[in-house]
Amino acid sequence: MTVNVGVIGAGMIGQDHIRRLTYVLSGARVSAVTDVDLDRAKSAVERLPGVQVHETGQDLISDPGVDAIIVASWGPTHEEYVLAGIAAGKQVFCEKPLATSREACERILDAEVASGKRHVMVGFMRRYDEAYRAMKATIVSGDIGAPLMFHSGHRNPSVPPHYTSDMIINDTCVHDVDVARFLLDDEIVSARVLTPRKNSLASDHLTDPVLFIFEMAGGALVDVEASINIQYAYDIRGEVVGESGTVELAETNTVVVKKGGQWGGRVAEDWRERFIRAYDTEFQEWINAAAKGESTGPSSWDGYAATVVCAAGLEAMESGERVEVSLREQPELYRNTAAGPTGTD
Amino acid sequence: MTVNVGVIGAGMIGQDHIRRLTYVLSGARVSAVTDVDLDRAKSAVERLPGVQVHETGQDLISDPGVDAIIVASWGPTHEEYVLAGIAAGKQVFCEKPLATSREACERILDAEVASGKRHVMVGFMRRYDEAYRAMKATIVSGDIGAPLMFHSGHRNPSVPPHYTSDMIINDTCVHDVDVARFLLDDEIVSARVLTPRKNSLASDHLTDPVLFIFEMAGGALVDVEASINIQYAYDIRGEVVGESGTVELAETNTVVVKKGGQWGGRVAEDWRERFIRAYDTEFQEWINAAAKGESTGPSSWDGYAATVVCAAGLEAMESGERVEVSLREQPELYRNTAAGPTGTD
Amino acid sequence: MTVNVGVIGAGMIGQDHIRRLTYVLSGARVSAVTDVDLDRAKSAVERLPGVQVHETGQDLISDPGVDAIIVASWGPTHEEYVLAGIAAGKQVFCEKPLATSREACERILDAEVASGKRHVMVGFMRRYDEAYRAMKATIVSGDIGAPLMFHSGHRNPSVPPHYTSDMIINDTCVHDVDVARFLLDDEIVSARVLTPRKNSLASDHLTDPVLFIFEMAGGALVDVEASINIQYAYDIRGEVVGESGTVELAETNTVVVKKGGQWGGRVAEDWRERFIRAYDTEFQEWINAAAKGESTGPSSWDGYAATVVCAAGLEAMESGERVEVSLREQPELYRNTAAGPTGTD
Amino acid sequence: MTVNVGVIGAGMIGQDHIRRLTYVLSGARVSAVTDVDLDRAKSAVERLPGVQVHETGQDLISDPGVDAIIVASWGPTHEEYVLAGIAAGKQVFCEKPLATSREACERILDAEVASGKRHVMVGFMRRYDEAYRAMKATIVSGDIGAPLMFHSGHRNPSVPPHYTSDMIINDTCVHDVDVARFLLDDEIVSARVLTPRKNSLASDHLTDPVLFIFEMAGGALVDVEASINIQYAYDIRGEVVGESGTVELAETNTVVVKKGGQWGGRVAEDWRERFIRAYDTEFQEWINAAAKGESTGPSSWDGYAATVVCAAGLEAMESGERVEVSLREQPELYRNTAAGPTGTD
Repeated sequence: MTVNVGVIGAGMIGQDHIRRLTYVLSGARVSAVTDVDLDRAKSAVERLPGVQVHETGQDLISDPGVDAIIVASWGPTHEEYVLAGIAAGKQVFCEKPLATSREACERILDAEVASGKRHVMVGFMRRYDEAYRAMKATIVSGDIGAPLMFHSGHRNPSVPPHYTSDMIINDTCVHDVDVARFLLDDEIVSARVLTPRKNSLASDHLTDPVLFIFEMAGGALVDVEASINIQYAYDIRGEVVGESGTVELAETNTVVVKKGGQWGGRVAEDWRERFIRAYDTEFQEWINAAAKGESTGPSSWDGYAATVVCAAGLEAMESGERVEVSLREQPELYRNTAAGPTGTD
Repeated sequence: MTVNVGVIGAGMIGQDHIRRLTYVLSGARVSAVTDVDLDRAKSAVERLPGVQVHETGQDLISDPGVDAIIVASWGPTHEEYVLAGIAAGKQVFCEKPLATSREACERILDAEVASGKRHVMVGFMRRYDEAYRAMKATIVSGDIGAPLMFHSGHRNPSVPPHYTSDMIINDTCVHDVDVARFLLDDEIVSARVLTPRKNSLASDHLTDPVLFIFEMAGGALVDVEASINIQYAYDIRGEVVGESGTVELAETNTVVVKKGGQWGGRVAEDWRERFIRAYDTEFQEWINAAAKGESTGPSSWDGYAATVVCAAGLEAMESGERVEVSLREQPELYRNTAAGPTGTD
Repeated sequence: MTVNVGVIGAGMIGQDHIRRLTYVLSGARVSAVTDVDLDRAKSAVERLPGVQVHETGQDLISDPGVDAIIVASWGPTHEEYVLAGIAAGKQVFCEKPLATSREACERILDAEVASGKRHVMVGFMRRYDEAYRAMKATIVSGDIGAPLMFHSGHRNPSVPPHYTSDMIINDTCVHDVDVARFLLDDEIVSARVLTPRKNSLASDHLTDPVLFIFEMAGGALVDVEASINIQYAYDIRGEVVGESGTVELAETNTVVVKKGGQWGGRVAEDWRERFIRAYDTEFQEWINAAAKGESTGPSSWDGYAATVVCAAGLEAMESGERVEVSLREQPELYRNTAAGPTGTD
Repeated sequence: MTVNVGVIGAGMIGQDHIRRLTYVLSGARVSAVTDVDLDRAKSAVERLPGVQVHETGQDLISDPGVDAIIVASWGPTHEEYVLAGIAAGKQVFCEKPLATSREACERILDAEVASGKRHVMVGFMRRYDEAYRAMKATIVSGDIGAPLMFHSGHRNPSVPPHYTSDMIINDTCVHDVDVARFLLDDEIVSARVLTPRKNSLASDHLTDPVLFIFEMAGGALVDVEASINIQYAYDIRGEVVGESGTVELAETNTVVVKKGGQWGGRVAEDWRERFIRAYDTEFQEWINAAAKGESTGPSSWDGYAATVVCAAGLEAMESGERVEVSLREQPELYRNTAAGPTGTD
């Protein structure tokens, strides 16, 4: 069965998903699209035959020719479309954030729990990256003992002009928040943000870099260095320190070149290069599950936890103090699924 | 347009291609299959709707519901099916070898040249491996100067019981032969095989390891260490030495683990793990070209050259002497395409 | 000229220095020794001709056959011997700590300043390690831009039974304190200690691991992971994050072994293996300077700063709060020398 | 006891040894020097008190104030000085070559055997390099199974104007010849030299690069790539391929720098940087043995074998053919010592 996918939001990310569903992956086709800018929606599918262009997301969601929905529109619109998707009984892939406030996320949790089954997968693609999966598999294997710390590094060569200071938490570190929960299989209970001297290459209005520190319920400690104007590359670092060993992300270069007194390899240029395969794997797994009417991967609960932690992180960045994080009680629906793909199955 | 693919040969490799076309790649479906063992053919597609099972390869090739053909049958049958595919004007993907003798390969060259266009792609998947592509891109960039030597290492943990001594040349080193031609963009003009002391872990009837040495027309020198019972892993090594620098394949581990006094990473377990992505890329490019009625990648000429060099290698292994390699004049049809994907486009 | 060295303290470290001066380095000989346990002193030099065994450190210091003094006795005795060495106008190599309290260190500063020249070198041997020197050279070169963060990792496989919780700051992290000041060429202005879940392999009375965080006067941020029962090896990690690049300590293995599905290298077994060459270099430079009646390397000021920061660290570990660090005004005598060897000369 | 060393030859290497004995190592002093250019001899020791400058090597050797002799003069003079040293019953450190012909080497063997004990150590310093020692220790440990091949790479950034084509064998590959004998603990029985296209950056009169191949008595195969104008660095590579694993030289950089899209480390600039510690270790071991009137390390036999193999290598380079190597029967004196330091003691 081919899954007919409707795409809400035809910006850069939406277009990339359309390309992926059409030319790379197996088992799905784009059957409908919409965008706040209707011309952009039309243009995104002009070479694809038989794609319905809808005027609104609600129209798209109720289209019987749409089996499953990708929400790739502006963050503040996510809640509305995800709720509509759940109401329509369709599978929804929602780019992060699940929603922009704790309350909005809780409304989604309520609706999904009420529906009796999972409908939502949140786009935390790092869980599908082979290297993070191998880290998790190493932790689960017991080879390094119980994990005690996770040092994460999130480095962007630069950020676009519209990037604002809150985005270092909400858009950048949000991935580290999720990956910490995934790797350590645990919830975050406090947030703290330390800010060293500002990188002089960053725009005046930005805080860059930051050291975002959080404690897990089980006592592990996580520190995330986020550097968003570090010039040299898009470099994602990570090391989990266990009781008797460690596991860290390897470099990703495929060849080593020796010239001019040096040996070395390439670091990724941007997130596309670094995570392109994770996106492919993530969507293929979503399609495969959707074809069976099932959900998989990072859940609404994961999206909710990330939103709550990032809100605490922002408060901590402003106050300079430790901020406690508290989540509502986890519904049964999300038990045993919070950690998503484990890398061990 | 979806390309309808007929698969000749439903053994391990044929089944893997059926899986790939059905569940992984975009733009193609398996529409027909055949095998010398008809039950095996039926079984390979039993869960796939609408696949025609043919009694013979010839029936499959002439089926109007087949747009393009994969030849994954026993080597000695390749010539017949490739020639029939060319005659039918269909695109053919032929697993190596193109054919098992120089003469058979030349009949294919003659037929394809007479047809006026390329129809055949030979399954040298290493050309689609990102690491080899990056090596080639480095060479082409001029960063290491003109290439003078290529040290290749081809290590298998073990070989199956039916593996015979000639296979170290014909089945193992044939990939290094092709990749040397690809990387150096040049033809091989002589072959020599040196044999050190035998690995005591190899079966009595095998020669293992060997050092297969060949000279390129332009004067570069290639040495291939083939070790086929080296136990530790499936390890593919390679370094091109240029006039002012070198480029070598990096290790492929995604994480580094520290425990018990050591740090380190994984080496691939087998060729599937090491080259699975190259197979995916290779087939996707073949499908994309076939959808446009075009051919791409390693050509019949590349298949011919590999067969001729391996025959010389076998002669050299037996005699202990240097054996000259001579190819017929290269038809215009294959000019500028011999090197296949360059890694620079 | 051969420098005649008197060694105060003939325990494990003192004995190692006697060995080094006698069998490894050039330009010095051990001419006198003392220890609180006189038999141990005698035994340490029983094979060496012409070494005077003194009953007290004061006797040794006033011995005209002693040109320069090594203080390797119990920490609380350091102040007395260093002050006596300064009073005697002799060069003193003092193992860390310079003294065990801020006040004691200040008395040494006062005495040395009053003497008009430097007499004291403190045993922060990491400044003589080639890798740290190369890190510093990279920073100074400007290749990575201005340094903003320093991530340090200090991992011991285990600690001896007499190790107490304060030692993770005073004996372990003290090296990271000094190396941060050295690499960043700046003073520490605050200390904070975060403590994750305890390593279950540590003794009940220990806090292990800790994340010791400090801010530099110029705004750079330093985080030190100290893990003192991590089993796998003695592993010293470090990465300085600059505005446009980073520099990190490489692994120290000399060979890579491939076996059993893995590739990898050795991590050092203990601090001797990791830093043996740094000790040799440190002492050779001290001897070379002492032969000319000069002092070099980490000064009393560096010893003072380390003692003050560690006291703040201990307070921070107990309180869980950020503790400010304030040093007295730096005497002119120590200007331009605080950073010791720069790795660039 | 301080060993009084006489140095014959005060050129670049002799001066370096004088510096090493005087300022770096323990237990020896330079007591005498001579050189074919007497002014150079005087100038080399002008700052050292009490060094006797002799007019001839023979005078120096018979000087009672000389306990042990370093022969660092022009190769053709080695035989004379080594024989005189043996006759004088003194320990001799002879830079390679031991002598420039098989016959000259055999006269030294005869003299030393007649003397009843070893007097000569030949300067194959790679045996004292930690990385090669670790390779040997790995082989001896059995971790990689019996060794079957050794791939060696010897790369110089450039060579001086006086470098002639024979020197690629006699001065460059001679180290690989010795290290192959050391690592594999076996003699070489044949030599072959293949020459790829010439590096266009090499002078017209040079053959560069070469692939020097030799077979060991036990059947292992060795290939040495010698590239003498490779520009990028002085890079010494090596991998021993065993029956079930491999061991290779690691990169030698102490830090990893990330900038400009790349990560990487330094490669050594020249042989001094790469092997400076091996020279120090080699001489310290020689001094320690000499102080006890004993000999250690690479013997006259090792020097003899290297000279014979290089002569065969030159013949092979000229003829393009395989050349057999045959050594005289090994005297009892050299049994169990041929392999020199094993890295396992």
